[in-house]
Amino acid sequence: MTRQILIPLFQQAKNTAGTRREQVCSSLRNAIHSGALPIGQRLPSSRVLAADLNISRVTVESAYSQLEAEGYLQRKVGVGTYVSIQIIKPPKTPRPSRLLQLSQRGNQIVQTGGCQDPLQPQAFAAGSPELRAFPLKLWKQITNQQLRIRGEQLLRYGDPQGYRPLREAIAGYLGQTRGVNCDAQQVIILTSSQQALQLIATLLLDHGDDVWMEEPGYVGARNAFISIGANLIPVSVDQDGLQPNNTLPAPRLIYVTPGHHYPTGVALSLERRLMLLETARKNHAWIIEDDYDSEFHYTGQPMPALQGVDNHGSVLYVGTFSKTLFPSLRLAYLVVPPTLVNAFTTARTLYDGHSNQLMQAVTAEFIQQGHFAAHIRYMRQLYHSRRDWLLTQIEQHLKHVATPQAASGGLQLTVWLPTGQESALTRQAQQLGVITPPLSRQYQTTAAQRDGWLLGFSALTPGEISLAVERLSRIKLP
Amino acid sequence: MTRQILIPLFQQAKNTAGTRREQVCSSLRNAIHSGALPIGQRLPSSRVLAADLNISRVTVESAYSQLEAEGYLQRKVGVGTYVSIQIIKPPKTPRPSRLLQLSQRGNQIVQTGGCQDPLQPQAFAAGSPELRAFPLKLWKQITNQQLRIRGEQLLRYGDPQGYRPLREAIAGYLGQTRGVNCDAQQVIILTSSQQALQLIATLLLDHGDDVWMEEPGYVGARNAFISIGANLIPVSVDQDGLQPNNTLPAPRLIYVTPGHHYPTGVALSLERRLMLLETARKNHAWIIEDDYDSEFHYTGQPMPALQGVDNHGSVLYVGTFSKTLFPSLRLAYLVVPPTLVNAFTTARTLYDGHSNQLMQAVTAEFIQQGHFAAHIRYMRQLYHSRRDWLLTQIEQHLKHVATPQAASGGLQLTVWLPTGQESALTRQAQQLGVITPPLSRQYQTTAAQRDGWLLGFSALTPGEISLAVERLSRIKLP
Repeated sequence: MTRQILIPLFQQAKNTAGTRREQVCSSLRNAIHSGALPIGQRLPSSRVLAADLNISRVTVESAYSQLEAEGYLQRKVGVGTYVSIQIIKPPKTPRPSRLLQLSQRGNQIVQTGGCQDPLQPQAFAAGSPELRAFPLKLWKQITNQQLRIRGEQLLRYGDPQGYRPLREAIAGYLGQTRGVNCDAQQVIILTSSQQALQLIATLLLDHGDDVWMEEPGYVGARNAFISIGANLIPVSVDQDGLQPNNTLPAPRLIYVTPGHHYPTGVALSLERRLMLLETARKNHAWIIEDDYDSEFHYTGQPMPALQGVDNHGSVLYVGTFSKTLFPSLRLAYLVVPPTLVNAFTTARTLYDGHSNQLMQAVTAEFIQQGHFAAHIRYMRQLYHSRRDWLLTQIEQHLKHVATPQAASGGLQLTVWLPTGQESALTRQAQQLGVITPPLSRQYQTTAAQRDGWLLGFSALTPGEISLAVERLSRIKLP
Repeated sequence: MTRQILIPLFQQAKNTAGTRREQVCSSLRNAIHSGALPIGQRLPSSRVLAADLNISRVTVESAYSQLEAEGYLQRKVGVGTYVSIQIIKPPKTPRPSRLLQLSQRGNQIVQTGGCQDPLQPQAFAAGSPELRAFPLKLWKQITNQQLRIRGEQLLRYGDPQGYRPLREAIAGYLGQTRGVNCDAQQVIILTSSQQALQLIATLLLDHGDDVWMEEPGYVGARNAFISIGANLIPVSVDQDGLQPNNTLPAPRLIYVTPGHHYPTGVALSLERRLMLLETARKNHAWIIEDDYDSEFHYTGQPMPALQGVDNHGSVLYVGTFSKTLFPSLRLAYLVVPPTLVNAFTTARTLYDGHSNQLMQAVTAEFIQQGHFAAHIRYMRQLYHSRRDWLLTQIEQHLKHVATPQAASGGLQLTVWLPTGQESALTRQAQQLGVITPPLSRQYQTTAAQRDGWLLGFSALTPGEISLAVERLSRIKLP
């Protein structure tokens, strides 16, 4: 059966560039990624597979060894070659017949299943800010004011790097609150942190480049790297954040969320920060600092950005207004070393031109008039009280099921579940009408996977939180 | 000297996937594209180059033959191998030292020089609609109304495929006015036609795939295909549009502007349309129909869209609101065959999520209330009278220099210049304070290049047009 899976995949791979060995590797990786070859599946001997594919046995041996080194396969003398890893299958894989018409990269993109943002705030879907508290009236006033003052000018094509007053406002804000070391010339306005990740992947990574990725880690980042064919190296995370070890291959790029690790919320320790910067310096590697929610830190001050202590221009800093203002604003920012500005600005013109100028002008004005700082202060208190309320409710009603992970901030709470119970408990929650996003989705492999939920609380009132936890309290452990 | 250029490029190419032959080809192509090897430059013999690069002579011979077939080189027995083509160098190429840090694809993107949209309406920069005639007051009213009715809902994350009422409005509009055969389920809302072109290239083209491209043709499309490493086949354009011949390699994708060819404004004849559809069917190829300005047709009715006569689901239809409403709106649309909807929607979530919901809701309402059709009717008359005024002015004051190309519509006018005079006349115009975008920028190669200007008139009043033409009338032919 394994042979029936591999032969057509290899025929397809033969149309791609690359050596025979690479084609065998990519066929096997695809079969494992798609779930066609599950964990524990025995593979044909190199002799048999070489005959099936009509290539040399040395090539197959070499491909098997490569995939063993990458962690896909395990080989035991006298026993055979086995799939040693299970890739978590994305939910929405379309039928293979349809995929055949897409490009190789197109197939990789579709196979990720995409990134799903929550369309409706609902207990406990993660990632929505509380929009009922957004100062919409004030926003409308500034919008009308900007249209009155600048009118026609804001309708025109805009600067691909971003509206200058907004870049200045962001540079000021990041310097003051996050210790980011930059001027407006280094700030690039984008529509989303996802666009930042995708542009970084496209401009800085070649097919097969090694990327260190937090495990568990942010699916949006993982998908951006997968879509350009990078080789993801899962790096485990402990209470001090990303924990590199000496056996890892040298990275071309490192993705980290140092402020609050996504999804567990732990902060990256200073020692680890310096270690990462040194790793980047030694290997001429880049670091993406995804500072996705540092505004919502509830206990003391968050550590300043990694970017601010980087002396070698290795760090690309990513932030977004999706959580601090509102998701459909479609504004995010990327701070890059000066030498990269031209490349990112040029790429933007090839991808989608520039961001809506009116939205940029209103946001700039909102920041400059001090409303942004005030809004964040208010929302921080609101989210803090909701987080504490959720912790109290879990302590009272859900102690038998869920153990919260300590974290100093964030818009969602990681809770750990008894080992092996995640999918059963998630199903029970669903039957009770509560969404409990399973933590397994955030893992790339099963190796270090821990059972848990990522509970979004930010868009829920205390009443809504109580109601949902009460429902969950009916969950029964087997 | 040629050897000094080729050796480091080949060393760099060796890090990429692909066979040695492909690496030699790409080194040579890059050297020609970058201008390092100009037209007429003699290349070393295959024996000498093979020794320099430490590879087999057969490989070099084979690479030379490939590039001869592609039109880059010309080989004459007993004389040698020469560069036979001159690639028009993009204006803003950064220093090579900086490029080395980018990925291969990143370098390709930067080397295109990007796509430049006009930031200021100015005689005769091409591509700006007349924004002084935009009904901004009405737009503000609908904006405030939508925020009042839907408020918080429009601040949330939106559907990656696009806001449903807008997709319905677009499907209705395209069916009625352009004969496009689709329902809302096939419409995908994007930020720009550039984003549509980039997503299509990414999802449907592999590195090295052959793309038929109009010559001259739209730089934005060309850059999107270059950025994914496609192989562009320039296809000449006559008075009936794209003119394929039997010697062209079979395409994987065909890019056309059938309504008004960009930049000359000619329409693709029905015979050619059917020929293209048949070519696509036979080769399982895709066709991009970029219907970028069919709304501005001044003589009779424009021919219905190619998409509407396609029975095999080969056509992807692209349109934009950048010209019909305003550029900074950042809304465009793509109509795809039903089997591709999921792939494009998934890709969108990996690239930048979705488009601003408020802008989509206001645009949907603007269309549904009938304002869009009325606005286009008004602007069509306005642009028609401006085009005719420009023709009169040229006839009176610029006859000795410029010969207008007959076209039935458009926001810019192609004029032909005496052979060999384009750059000298453009310089003279610049000294007189008038921008006259040279037509050579729209050509991929020098082979079929004709001297001309692409004069944007849509954002200029008759007074502004007269003033600029009067200045140009001082131009002297040598």
